[in-house]
Amino acid sequence: MSTVDKQLEDVKATIDEEVPRRISVSDVTYEGPELVIYTRDPKEFAANSDLVRRLASKLRKRITVRPDPDVLAPPAEAEEAIRELIPEEAGVMDLDFHADTGEVVVQAQKPGVVIGRRGSTLREITQEVGWTPEVVRTPPIESSTVENVRNFLKQEREDRRDILERVGRQIHREPMSDDEYVRITTLGCCREVGRAAFILSTPDTRILIDCGNKPGANGEQPYLDIPEAFGAGTNGIDAVVLTHAHLDHSALVPLLFEYGYDGPIYCTEPTRDLMGLLTLDHLDTAADDGRTPPYDSEMVREAIKHTIPLEYGDVTDIAPDIKLTLHNAGHILGSSVCHFHVGDGLYNVAFSGDIHYDDTRLFDGAVNDFPRVETLVLESTYGGRNDYQTDQEDSERKLKQIIQNAYDRNGKVLIPTFAVGRSQELMLVLEEAMRNGDIPEMPVHLDGMIWEATAVHTTYPEYLRDGLQDRIFDEDKNPFLADRFNPIDGDDEEREEIADGDSCIILSTSGMLTGGPVMSWLDQLGPDPDSTLTFVDYQAEGTLGKRIQRGIDEVPVSGSGRNEKVPLEMTVETVDGFSGHADRQGLENFVKTMNPRPEKILCVHGDESATQDLSSSLYHDQNIRTFAPENLETFRFR
Amino acid sequence: MSTVDKQLEDVKATIDEEVPRRISVSDVTYEGPELVIYTRDPKEFAANSDLVRRLASKLRKRITVRPDPDVLAPPAEAEEAIRELIPEEAGVMDLDFHADTGEVVVQAQKPGVVIGRRGSTLREITQEVGWTPEVVRTPPIESSTVENVRNFLKQEREDRRDILERVGRQIHREPMSDDEYVRITTLGCCREVGRAAFILSTPDTRILIDCGNKPGANGEQPYLDIPEAFGAGTNGIDAVVLTHAHLDHSALVPLLFEYGYDGPIYCTEPTRDLMGLLTLDHLDTAADDGRTPPYDSEMVREAIKHTIPLEYGDVTDIAPDIKLTLHNAGHILGSSVCHFHVGDGLYNVAFSGDIHYDDTRLFDGAVNDFPRVETLVLESTYGGRNDYQTDQEDSERKLKQIIQNAYDRNGKVLIPTFAVGRSQELMLVLEEAMRNGDIPEMPVHLDGMIWEATAVHTTYPEYLRDGLQDRIFDEDKNPFLADRFNPIDGDDEEREEIADGDSCIILSTSGMLTGGPVMSWLDQLGPDPDSTLTFVDYQAEGTLGKRIQRGIDEVPVSGSGRNEKVPLEMTVETVDGFSGHADRQGLENFVKTMNPRPEKILCVHGDESATQDLSSSLYHDQNIRTFAPENLETFRFR
Repeated sequence: MSTVDKQLEDVKATIDEEVPRRISVSDVTYEGPELVIYTRDPKEFAANSDLVRRLASKLRKRITVRPDPDVLAPPAEAEEAIRELIPEEAGVMDLDFHADTGEVVVQAQKPGVVIGRRGSTLREITQEVGWTPEVVRTPPIESSTVENVRNFLKQEREDRRDILERVGRQIHREPMSDDEYVRITTLGCCREVGRAAFILSTPDTRILIDCGNKPGANGEQPYLDIPEAFGAGTNGIDAVVLTHAHLDHSALVPLLFEYGYDGPIYCTEPTRDLMGLLTLDHLDTAADDGRTPPYDSEMVREAIKHTIPLEYGDVTDIAPDIKLTLHNAGHILGSSVCHFHVGDGLYNVAFSGDIHYDDTRLFDGAVNDFPRVETLVLESTYGGRNDYQTDQEDSERKLKQIIQNAYDRNGKVLIPTFAVGRSQELMLVLEEAMRNGDIPEMPVHLDGMIWEATAVHTTYPEYLRDGLQDRIFDEDKNPFLADRFNPIDGDDEEREEIADGDSCIILSTSGMLTGGPVMSWLDQLGPDPDSTLTFVDYQAEGTLGKRIQRGIDEVPVSGSGRNEKVPLEMTVETVDGFSGHADRQGLENFVKTMNPRPEKILCVHGDESATQDLSSSLYHDQNIRTFAPENLETFRFR
Repeated sequence: MSTVDKQLEDVKATIDEEVPRRISVSDVTYEGPELVIYTRDPKEFAANSDLVRRLASKLRKRITVRPDPDVLAPPAEAEEAIRELIPEEAGVMDLDFHADTGEVVVQAQKPGVVIGRRGSTLREITQEVGWTPEVVRTPPIESSTVENVRNFLKQEREDRRDILERVGRQIHREPMSDDEYVRITTLGCCREVGRAAFILSTPDTRILIDCGNKPGANGEQPYLDIPEAFGAGTNGIDAVVLTHAHLDHSALVPLLFEYGYDGPIYCTEPTRDLMGLLTLDHLDTAADDGRTPPYDSEMVREAIKHTIPLEYGDVTDIAPDIKLTLHNAGHILGSSVCHFHVGDGLYNVAFSGDIHYDDTRLFDGAVNDFPRVETLVLESTYGGRNDYQTDQEDSERKLKQIIQNAYDRNGKVLIPTFAVGRSQELMLVLEEAMRNGDIPEMPVHLDGMIWEATAVHTTYPEYLRDGLQDRIFDEDKNPFLADRFNPIDGDDEEREEIADGDSCIILSTSGMLTGGPVMSWLDQLGPDPDSTLTFVDYQAEGTLGKRIQRGIDEVPVSGSGRNEKVPLEMTVETVDGFSGHADRQGLENFVKTMNPRPEKILCVHGDESATQDLSSSLYHDQNIRTFAPENLETFRFR
């Protein structure tokens, strides 16, 4: 008998002791990090809501109860009963019955209403029909990304169960080694921005944290070929954890499957969907530029199929000796500070990923409160001694003035921006400014992937800031659905009409003018001295955006077979303070107010001087042992 | 065509250009790090001594010229001619003809005389008979170790050629990677003494430096199971380099072959032989103690078969991007400071191994002069702030006084000591003291492996200090052959007779009274208040030696079925200053006078406080960037 099976026997014995005789337990298995209990009496389990909580706390596992298939009401009959039980205002759109697991997926406009107070409606459903309901939101804005992911996962349900079962057995295997150590190996993003990738290793387990590319530096991948990473073969990695979906953290996750990786990816649900959106777009961009993409879309689907979504705060076994908890990082939708608890109280490491310390319109500031943490791996993007940003209020005031000025000249405002994160923050600023009458009402056109990314945001309002969440949840005043927002559907005629029309605001990708529909806008509006080009994002060296900031007066516009230049007569403005990253002050505050205070900090994900500045100042000002690692180093903590 | 074959083609083309038409070149191959040129005109090559030198410098390779088998004089005829050519005083004992390589192994008492001025006699031999002579010394003291190794290698000649050819092709393969990095991973002996093991890695190559055990801590092996070591499979290691033969550096080298390692081991010839002696004894000890030995003697033979001996100062390609040079380390016979030149001028690292900075009676002090070196990995055994040892002259005076006192009481002096290194140093002290009349003439009995280890020393006088070498070479006044030295052949009757007899000195293993014949001596002499037990070696915590130093008055003596205690009435003395390690002053001087001055130093191979003290003081006093690594860390240098 394998160690997993033996351990399951013990678990079963405990369950048998705890569960009253009249409630049957027909089987107990692992699915990913969860323990699944099959029963012929699902209604009894539902009626004893305390029972599952007690088992979970006793076994220290996440528990799912599933009905035996043959005790279920027939789907047609069940559907009728379920629709009767759920209040109409929930907006139930679709019911999807899965006899293999006894689950029914309920898609609704208001999942909260379906769930009921503390899950009361869900329990009622199970008591009535036996099926276990799982609720998903009908996106308030139709999102092809979310729909594609859901359809794909539905179609791959069987494969996915196999994967989850395999992962479950791996997570719950017995530790093999008598040694004890905790190590971090740096594979990328040390003394540089981009290609984030780390390995957290113990004698039994190796976890890959992030696997990004380096934007603007073609082919710069993390060092995956060394023995500590995939040099030892892909089955040497037990799990991948993804902090967030930006390409410098996620772009090469699908490539792992090309290399033969076959294990789980842990991240939030929105990170999974945005990773799908951004990596597929990454492949398109590569193809458009005539580069060979590093993998094909099949690998993106593999990545999605292997993703085990976690919610903030869930403490999850991801290996025999490692528990993972994700916390809000405040950077983009679904972004996480990843906390690893190693061994039974042996050691705790938090990887910040990218963070924003202060609250923004979209997100609460990053969580820095943990039960325990000895080592923090901290991003340093704005860690330089002068990297203090303008206060967001001042930035907003400046942006509104720019818009007012352009409007007064009957001009237009073109804002190049990243699809995920910054665009939605700006939409909130603009929506409020117009609602309050701070700036005149005018259309806000959204070009590129912005609208799609916004749709993903509205699918997961739980990840947005409380106030914003409420507006979406309860008041039906979803600011993203404001009339003034107009998604462009990739039609050049529409763009020409807009360019010839009245004052308006245009948000368009790419954020650094390295391609995308913004190039077409530049072609149309470049020669118009009444319009204003406004930068709100960081412009990297070598990009057209950076060159325009430096003052070039004509811009190359290639497209539709042309390869010419247009004069740049637009006013050019830059507004900082909208960054998704904590500035120097934010990083210092994150550490200063962190609870508990970490013993060691590795400063990563920043250029050479930003990293060294931050490392040295945290050491001197806060007296914490800090390091500014190089790529390819290994630190031992225990 | 493989890259090696292609590169060989280029080498052949160069050789064809340089060698005059009248001299044939029938084949060119690699054997280990050497380039072997086969010719039908060996006599011509021998006559043009400049030619090989010119080729070596042009090709930057070590070159061996071998005759085609069919141009060789028949062995019987050749033997007669050779014996005629070599002066009689050389003491030729044996000629061994190997038709496959055209080599004749000449065993002689005085190899120098066989070789002649600058190799003139060797060239004469080849010119006369075609055969290539290789000269080995007939040990002045018969050594079963040396004889066994030589016989074994003779018997395994064919296997060995296969190994060398394979290794040769691996060394001369083209580098694969575009990356450039130099890393050191610590597998053992960090903040501890024992289980020395490091990995030096580049994108193309991984070298394991040392692979020892931790004496006194059963089962404490270096971390070989991590991916950076053998976790990635044994073919991930390209070569093993052994600094010296002590078990804390060598004990697990044979185990590597048990794990499937099949590559070369680079070390000096005496290190190879002593490794054979010590690891086989290690297996015997384990078996005697009822422990399961970690490998069997077959693996020791594998290790010996895979050893490629290097001489001090030879610059040798051991990988496409790494050149190794060994230098005298002054610690024990054949011990080396290992200098690695990585890439074409990319980086240089020196591993000190164990060193003695000052000259001793046996050895010159450690070499610290290199063409280039950026990083030094430095032992720290006596790196603690108070680890200053007594001057050797004072120590010798004290030892002589102890002997005189015992003699005056008609007692005996029992000195527990390590077989390799310290014993020979003491023999030189005692021989001189008696020769000079500083102490009375008396027998010096040598028990355990001491005599055998001494025999190995006399086989390789080139590795001993110049003055001592001369005494062995030219004056035939080999101090080790002095009449007063009496090897015990393991006979308990002889021991009893000696114990009952007149004053004498007994050197016996083990050095820390953890077993071995010294226990029998303790049994006999323990109750004799006229005799003196004298410690000259470091006594580790937990050993009987340490407990006696602390003052216990009876000692357990198990053996011949008894398990009892004898009272300890002997006088107990301790004399330091005979250590094979540099003391704190020596380590500081090694760094201070090092040329060039290193940029970084990793302090290793010392207990926690010794390592940290040394690291901190080198940083403060000499302003060099120093580290006190933990095991299992990885440092990147380039």
